[in-house]
Amino acid sequence: MASSICKHAAFAPSPATFRSTKFPILPVYLIRNGRRPSSAAVFCSLRPHYIPNHIPDPNYVRIFDTTLRDGEQSPGATMTTKEKLDIARQLARLGVDIIEAGFPASSDADFEAVQLIAREFSSADSGLVPVICGLARCNKRDIERSWEAVKHASKPRIHTFIATSQIHMDFKLKMTPGQVVHKATTMVAYARSLGCRDVEFSPEDAGRSDREFLYRILGEVIKAGATTLNIPDTVGYTLPSEFGQLIADIKANTPGIENVIISTHCQNDLGLSTANTIAGAYSGARQVEVTINGIGERAGNASLEEVVMAIKCRGEQALDGLYTGINTQHIIMASKMVEEYSGLRIQPHKAIVGANAFAHESGIHQDGMLKHKNTYEIISPEDIGLLRSNESGIVLGKLSGRHALKAKMLELGYDIDGKELDDLFSRFKAVAGNKKNISDDDLVALVSDEVFQPQTVWKLEDVTCGSLGLSTATVKLIHANGDERISCSVGTGPVDAAYKAVDLVVKVPVTLLEYSMSGVTEGIDAIATTRVLIRGEDSVTATHAYTGESVNRAFRH
Amino acid sequence: MASSICKHAAFAPSPATFRSTKFPILPVYLIRNGRRPSSAAVFCSLRPHYIPNHIPDPNYVRIFDTTLRDGEQSPGATMTTKEKLDIARQLARLGVDIIEAGFPASSDADFEAVQLIAREFSSADSGLVPVICGLARCNKRDIERSWEAVKHASKPRIHTFIATSQIHMDFKLKMTPGQVVHKATTMVAYARSLGCRDVEFSPEDAGRSDREFLYRILGEVIKAGATTLNIPDTVGYTLPSEFGQLIADIKANTPGIENVIISTHCQNDLGLSTANTIAGAYSGARQVEVTINGIGERAGNASLEEVVMAIKCRGEQALDGLYTGINTQHIIMASKMVEEYSGLRIQPHKAIVGANAFAHESGIHQDGMLKHKNTYEIISPEDIGLLRSNESGIVLGKLSGRHALKAKMLELGYDIDGKELDDLFSRFKAVAGNKKNISDDDLVALVSDEVFQPQTVWKLEDVTCGSLGLSTATVKLIHANGDERISCSVGTGPVDAAYKAVDLVVKVPVTLLEYSMSGVTEGIDAIATTRVLIRGEDSVTATHAYTGESVNRAFRH
Repeated sequence: MASSICKHAAFAPSPATFRSTKFPILPVYLIRNGRRPSSAAVFCSLRPHYIPNHIPDPNYVRIFDTTLRDGEQSPGATMTTKEKLDIARQLARLGVDIIEAGFPASSDADFEAVQLIAREFSSADSGLVPVICGLARCNKRDIERSWEAVKHASKPRIHTFIATSQIHMDFKLKMTPGQVVHKATTMVAYARSLGCRDVEFSPEDAGRSDREFLYRILGEVIKAGATTLNIPDTVGYTLPSEFGQLIADIKANTPGIENVIISTHCQNDLGLSTANTIAGAYSGARQVEVTINGIGERAGNASLEEVVMAIKCRGEQALDGLYTGINTQHIIMASKMVEEYSGLRIQPHKAIVGANAFAHESGIHQDGMLKHKNTYEIISPEDIGLLRSNESGIVLGKLSGRHALKAKMLELGYDIDGKELDDLFSRFKAVAGNKKNISDDDLVALVSDEVFQPQTVWKLEDVTCGSLGLSTATVKLIHANGDERISCSVGTGPVDAAYKAVDLVVKVPVTLLEYSMSGVTEGIDAIATTRVLIRGEDSVTATHAYTGESVNRAFRH
Repeated sequence: MASSICKHAAFAPSPATFRSTKFPILPVYLIRNGRRPSSAAVFCSLRPHYIPNHIPDPNYVRIFDTTLRDGEQSPGATMTTKEKLDIARQLARLGVDIIEAGFPASSDADFEAVQLIAREFSSADSGLVPVICGLARCNKRDIERSWEAVKHASKPRIHTFIATSQIHMDFKLKMTPGQVVHKATTMVAYARSLGCRDVEFSPEDAGRSDREFLYRILGEVIKAGATTLNIPDTVGYTLPSEFGQLIADIKANTPGIENVIISTHCQNDLGLSTANTIAGAYSGARQVEVTINGIGERAGNASLEEVVMAIKCRGEQALDGLYTGINTQHIIMASKMVEEYSGLRIQPHKAIVGANAFAHESGIHQDGMLKHKNTYEIISPEDIGLLRSNESGIVLGKLSGRHALKAKMLELGYDIDGKELDDLFSRFKAVAGNKKNISDDDLVALVSDEVFQPQTVWKLEDVTCGSLGLSTATVKLIHANGDERISCSVGTGPVDAAYKAVDLVVKVPVTLLEYSMSGVTEGIDAIATTRVLIRGEDSVTATHAYTGESVNRAFRH
């Protein structure tokens, strides 16, 4: 496949071989694994055009991101619709092939978010558009809701699942294997009958399912019209060698498997999800399900950044030439956005995207590191966008105008207009007056602080705390209707006192689950972010994807 | 090997077969992999007795913990000597076979910490005593310092290393392969000549070293007297299949390898360290180098808890019966201690020990989970000490006395006496007066808050912040000599203002690297912990283990 070096991928010449097809040219940044381009030069190439059940290039691995569905199931990770749309846009920029946008039947809010994202990617003429996928259990209502939500996308997909391990069939489904096969095939066929040409099926807990039963049910759903078969290691139980063997066995023994795509979905309970995912791809899976920062229930999922960078670094040499279509330079921004919106802080030693991932004891700016760079580093920070080259040449300072701020924010992945832009601009001016260098991190902190917030009911105008003797706090709250209230309270500490003072005014019974505060940028004049996780005592509920239970969702500030 | 169920392992009957040997009976809690005892009953068994270059049971995998050496190289993770000793005691309680206590030649502080830990484990008559190991580069001074520090331990070990990959030999060492072999063999022999019978050798960057050269240098150091050969994947570059093959190749091709122990040391740059470590053990390594929480430079090391639990869960079934001597019920306490002392917060979705590792969206206490327990969980929280059974039966409340507190703290892994106990007791009483239930987490928070702190120079008596208009802060500081100072400052936010106010009094030029605050216990009356990471402008320096550079160390509060 032809590849050329160009500054702006969007203006890359389109190879003639693809001009005659009906499929759009995909002008993505594609950094082929094994080669390391300089940070300035980016290889432009073509992503194979999208056919649900077939990939023209046998070495291409599709990236299926489920940050918005499985990732959002993390305790406390609930995101607003606006935040989800923002992340979806960043995932598209990153070049993911499929975005699992949510579980539409679980709640009205989830339905609306998936629908909004599907409409965002409804353009028929851009090859960059990712597939938009909605989750559904194997029942008609779930599948209908999922289709209603995703059908506006230019490439819609329904993903349906049912458990196939003996323990799940016995205790959760209370169904015989025959009943499970029947349910799966009729529901896959039902999804196709609605007009959805792209249907993914997952046998839940495949890692612990009987092998022969797995071949049987997978063979039957292929006949029923499934185009991707996803093999989840639901409890994160298998070792890489076992998971690789599972994929190889399925590939070797399932009737009709050559007509569909095999996918992996690995949980991280034993810390093996990245290795299992790569083992699966090496054994024949051509779709991998991952999340940004590896978020998800319990110990989370395989993380996009680890899987993508492992394939990029070792694909040519150790994985028979596997590669992905991810533009890795957008990884850091995606990671920061998901960290901020989900409230799930990543640890400093998180591989690829952790604060220390490229730092040595003596700090990331240490001169000495430079001479050892190739001896200790296998990935350049620039490869993942860490020392981002300023593509537009915009450097912001206190004299910068609204237009420059808008352009810069677009570059960082935030599309901001109107009142939001006005608010951001005035905050930006205030910070720029106090701070010499406005870093990208400062801007991201400002955005998440000011713009993507829910509607205000009470605004906290001021809080004063002290602890001479007992801890006390005084708070001043302003209601949306203009009412002002001042209240004070004592407590076991300043946070406790401040919360009690707020409670005296607001009077909504909530449970405080978590409180944390961290500096998001460096230096003594850093911008700090606080995270408060609460659960209302009679609050919004949603349906859990796997257990089917109704759960109280947690909210954060 | 015989195993029996008993309540107190220390009183387990010693099988007669071992009575005749000179080696002490090792009454450790040993939970054999594959079997899951109830949380009340603990399997007691024997750890094979310690011979440096041989393990009597071919399935036993030694756990070499390097939290205090490699882990402490994490940016900002610098610990005090007292904290290191505390962690060493917890590691012994956990049942690790070898503790790498530090790099004695790097600084006087490191030397003293290693020496103190060696003396702590100098008892000749307890089989529980772990090996105490000190790192040394391949030079006489390093090896002498290491020996001086560890020789008081009942089982001392020197660990020496030199790089063997072409890129490191060319650019870092500027030595020929022949010179490297000579250096390695003479230094291993020198370590033995000092009286050390237990010498570990690591060919640094083995993952990228020429295979034939590796066999040659390893064969030579075996002849020179090395007892353990550690194979590091220094840059976290290999895939599990490759790393497993590397260990298998070394085992098959190195002359004399049957007389020594092969070890793994896997960095986590691509998120594959746990999988690589397990692949190494499966291929014949019988020592694995790990850290608590996976801390370490860059993306850290293989984490003890992931490797140990993977072997425990899958050893019998998928790893030909491999097992370790770790008492997994002490994992959570070790994890919390290292998190607190290193200041490196683990992410909520960290496998095994993260806050969400056993939580579903609806929270860890959700009733519904109970009926699904076996369908979704492969590890019980009790297995790692998360819902700790109260072994001593001590429940603390506001009427509890000093004695009960001391006993409870011992159970939690903290040995506290004298003034420290007095201080803790008075803080405990204050909290017990305000809070109905004193949880283990509350106690740990109190301990780390009050007891293990460096000597006070300035004590922060009070701070008051407000932001009506500009952010302001007033602080009251008391010097160790009794002087009181009050100062106030304005700033870009309350943290900035408070720091500036402190600066006006203290006048030590430092750089603030990081500021974070998080609730460490649940609920609105939670105890919070703050983390402040600073680097002095002309501060304490130490030698970096691998680069040999002098680095400024960071300090935290």
